[in-house]
Amino acid sequence: MYSTRMSLHTTIMVSLGDRSYPIVVGNGLLNGAFDLSTFVVGDDCLIVSNVTVAPLYQDGVLANLVGKTVSTIELPDGEAYKSIGTMQTILDRLVETGANRDTTVIALGGGVVGDIAGFAAACYMRGVSFIQVPTTLLAQVDSSVGGKTGVNHPGGKNLVGAFHQPQVVMIDTDTLTTLPDRELQAGLAEVIKYGAICDLDFLGWLENNMPALLDKEPQALAYAIQRSCELKAEVVAEDEREAGRRAILNFGHTFGHAIEHCCGYGEWLHGEAVAAGMIMAAELSDIAETDVARLRALITAAGLPTRPPAIAADDWMRAMGMDKKVQKKTLRFVLMRALGDAQVTESYDAERLQQIIGVND
Amino acid sequence: MYSTRMSLHTTIMVSLGDRSYPIVVGNGLLNGAFDLSTFVVGDDCLIVSNVTVAPLYQDGVLANLVGKTVSTIELPDGEAYKSIGTMQTILDRLVETGANRDTTVIALGGGVVGDIAGFAAACYMRGVSFIQVPTTLLAQVDSSVGGKTGVNHPGGKNLVGAFHQPQVVMIDTDTLTTLPDRELQAGLAEVIKYGAICDLDFLGWLENNMPALLDKEPQALAYAIQRSCELKAEVVAEDEREAGRRAILNFGHTFGHAIEHCCGYGEWLHGEAVAAGMIMAAELSDIAETDVARLRALITAAGLPTRPPAIAADDWMRAMGMDKKVQKKTLRFVLMRALGDAQVTESYDAERLQQIIGVND
Repeated sequence: MYSTRMSLHTTIMVSLGDRSYPIVVGNGLLNGAFDLSTFVVGDDCLIVSNVTVAPLYQDGVLANLVGKTVSTIELPDGEAYKSIGTMQTILDRLVETGANRDTTVIALGGGVVGDIAGFAAACYMRGVSFIQVPTTLLAQVDSSVGGKTGVNHPGGKNLVGAFHQPQVVMIDTDTLTTLPDRELQAGLAEVIKYGAICDLDFLGWLENNMPALLDKEPQALAYAIQRSCELKAEVVAEDEREAGRRAILNFGHTFGHAIEHCCGYGEWLHGEAVAAGMIMAAELSDIAETDVARLRALITAAGLPTRPPAIAADDWMRAMGMDKKVQKKTLRFVLMRALGDAQVTESYDAERLQQIIGVND
Repeated sequence: MYSTRMSLHTTIMVSLGDRSYPIVVGNGLLNGAFDLSTFVVGDDCLIVSNVTVAPLYQDGVLANLVGKTVSTIELPDGEAYKSIGTMQTILDRLVETGANRDTTVIALGGGVVGDIAGFAAACYMRGVSFIQVPTTLLAQVDSSVGGKTGVNHPGGKNLVGAFHQPQVVMIDTDTLTTLPDRELQAGLAEVIKYGAICDLDFLGWLENNMPALLDKEPQALAYAIQRSCELKAEVVAEDEREAGRRAILNFGHTFGHAIEHCCGYGEWLHGEAVAAGMIMAAELSDIAETDVARLRALITAAGLPTRPPAIAADDWMRAMGMDKKVQKKTLRFVLMRALGDAQVTESYDAERLQQIIGVND
């Protein structure tokens, strides 16, 4: 006998033709409440998690996979392990369990777990099915949606990877109750980003609800996640492989990735680096100083840094030169035309850039 | 001043919507005769070759890339190096040269070089452009066409990889003049395969022209390559990601991969393993013994093995269990309904299979 549990959830579709999939956002989805097995094509799954998350939620996911044969692997925890080497341990585990093309890889954890597990799923036998169960705010609002997978290279973040869309993304907001405050705040950086690049109303909502979000008020979190996923799904549906508009999702990331690269991955959390990077990008944008101040205030209210660490100007330029948006040797930035409206551009004030990266030199 | 060289070539289109590309087959295409630079999207290329092929043909390819900035990397030669580790050296080289999304990777060499370089191109920044310049018969008629890329895993051949279509495949038959006889013969196994699975007329042509092919008679080779590419292009256009019919291209490969796996990659050449595997698959097919004998005679005429090495029945089954065609734990084989007509099937005579793999036990 098992109890019937009720769960409330909303579903957002990512429209990508035959690669379309639902994002399910709600609370109480684990422990048998939401049937994941309908998204598993064959009989076998491999749950990829890490040593921190697996003890908390792996049993909860297992209960959503009734009738399936489930293997597991626990990775070490941390951005430092987002490497080809770690991906190989997943591939080894798949081989060891005799996984075939109809095996489904399930990522349970934050962005690092999702990115590595997704890349392993993309490469194993040239692609097997994949499900995302993100447990950090950052993964829920950003990395689990859109099909970008990959690992870091000593030469740059996410330099190696694949586009590989999941079958479903299941977001249980209850998992945020165990998330450290610092990680919640880092996730809020990406939430703020959506407002800054394409939804001024949402930015206003965030200004009003930041205290509730920091208090992990369930309804506030659910709305912030849902709206973030809606906005991301819209952009991704327009431009799956980032030929154009999708790059606006990288607002703050050219600077942010350079911060992470220069400080060693993991020293600054991704969201923290993006937060400081967004202010730098706003300063490079041709917008009113009052709008930059408004963004700075919101980022500060979220408990996030607004200034980068000390990095030499040369190191900035070298690290940003590795950015995937570089075309024909020209740096491109995501800049705001106005608060709530960003675009990718090669046209920026080079002198202003030198000032911005030189401030902390 | 440079001389105007004439080249004769035919072009076969692989029709895959916005991923369509030409296969150019001819002689005298290197040394500036065929302009590859029009297929290079940006300014930068990386030629990936190996220590055997680079000294022979790298300058010839460079002459086809006028106006481009070209870096190079030479891999060690051999199937044993078709590993994630070797792929990482290509990724490292791309990072080192500051390669971005508009960089083009050019594979110059046999199937191993093409598969690894293609996989590196698929993964670097989640996919950069890719050109194939195959220099072995095997690569020219098979591995360079169709977009399958990947590396071996200790658990099985090509277990890790991606589908990544090239911009163009340039096949200069002149490169076969330096190909060792054993490798030419190994390539003929895949040529024979096309006749066996889908073109009985071509099989007849091969029976008549095998001596000319073994003598490297240019026109015979050109026709064999062209017809093989046409047949493969047709099958791939129908089923790019091997959801169904494309699997017939694996005729002889379930057994063949097991031979390679059990003997250690590189001991038997891929084509040799496939040759013996095709006879095993023919014996498992419900066709006349005279047709099996006809295929055996053609494979013998090509100087290829018709019997597998001694492998224990258990090892056969374990190795074949790793085959990518396995679905829901059931082995599937490509078997002939008649000579010149193959299909993928789960229905086969299990007792006969035991006899076939037990013969050499």
